Amino acid sequence: MIYSTPKKHIVLASASPRRREILSGMGASFTVVCADTDESSDSVSPEELTMELARRKGQAVLELLRSRDEDGGAIIISADTVVACGGEILGKPADRQDAKRMLNMLSGSTHTVTTGIAVTNNGITVTDCSVTRVHVDTIPPAELEKYLDSAEPYDKAGAYGIQGRFSQWVKGIDGCYFGVVGLPVNRLSALFYKCVGCYPDEI
Amino acid sequence: MIYSTPKKHIVLASASPRRREILSGMGASFTVVCADTDESSDSVSPEELTMELARRKGQAVLELLRSRDEDGGAIIISADTVVACGGEILGKPADRQDAKRMLNMLSGSTHTVTTGIAVTNNGITVTDCSVTRVHVDTIPPAELEKYLDSAEPYDKAGAYGIQGRFSQWVKGIDGCYFGVVGLPVNRLSALFYKCVGCYPDEI
Repeated sequence: MIYSTPKKHIVLASASPRRREILSGMGASFTVVCADTDESSDSVSPEELTMELARRKGQAVLELLRSRDEDGGAIIISADTVVACGGEILGKPADRQDAKRMLNMLSGSTHTVTTGIAVTNNGITVTDCSVTRVHVDTIPPAELEKYLDSAEPYDKAGAYGIQGRFSQWVKGIDGCYFGVVGLPVNRLSALFYKCVGCYPDEI
Repeated sequence: MIYSTPKKHIVLASASPRRREILSGMGASFTVVCADTDESSDSVSPEELTMELARRKGQAVLELLRSRDEDGGAIIISADTVVACGGEILGKPADRQDAKRMLNMLSGSTHTVTTGIAVTNNGITVTDCSVTRVHVDTIPPAELEKYLDSAEPYDKAGAYGIQGRFSQWVKGIDGCYFGVVGLPVNRLSALFYKCVGCYPDEI
């Protein structure tokens, strides 16, 4: 009996259309598979937390693929993003009031966005993260209400999307722009190379 | 005889699809009009140079609109972007060899991207600019050749697009990401408000 080696292919373990867009922009071909992940954590820093959650998201997808006997050759890319401001870690807002509270914290101040990434290949997972400081202008109250009326804040950590209408209030950043959007391209490219031995657009 | 005041409308004086996309992302409605502009200059700094060229581009479009008797109510947005590295100002590359020379200068080092912007309204032009430092990873020679084989380098200052495949080599930036792409959203929003009295999405 002859077994053929399964062809290598990339699986993105994220439902985020923004991560999908960034990975496409890197020239990679991939499929998207998501699995429920326990997001509770005792991690103390955003770096530890996001790398731990990225690892867990990748692991959950690996187990799902295994259960379907589809894990052969899969290289899994996963990520987790959080916003940290004034010692508080901000995930996705629960509702409008929560989004407003978060945006008022960010208005006129500087916060950090941390994205942990994980690449899983042949049962081995490697992780890294990017930390970016984001300097936000004062948001006029009437403009804030208009922003809360839009769909933009509600599915994003910290209640904003830097690539959308929020961009008008971003004075500048120190670090990786794509890490703020949700997938730090430069770090991911290097981590993928380290784990797989080639770049994502070569699979 | 009764003259009605022409309705205010925004004109983007740039052929760049990236500037068009950013201005759309700001929620603005606008038309695109381009006019030939003399780009020779004695300006000594990237800041002066780009603001001077942005002003000239806006002026050229205003004159074109005037010649067609279409200038009434037009608010003209114009911009100019240059890359500065090691004391040299890099515009668009002349050819593949020129693009290669530029990219080899940028590889493994830090450069600045300056975008001057101008808003013209009621015959008055105001200008501003954003300056962003971009930290570039070492680009492996084989990857550089692949990049030169693509269309990306040839219509852009400094021979790269930060939003495209080049993103894999961008370790990070200090400043405005959208200024590097070609239109600094936060600065433009404030400059527009100063000149027109409202935001671009309110016209």
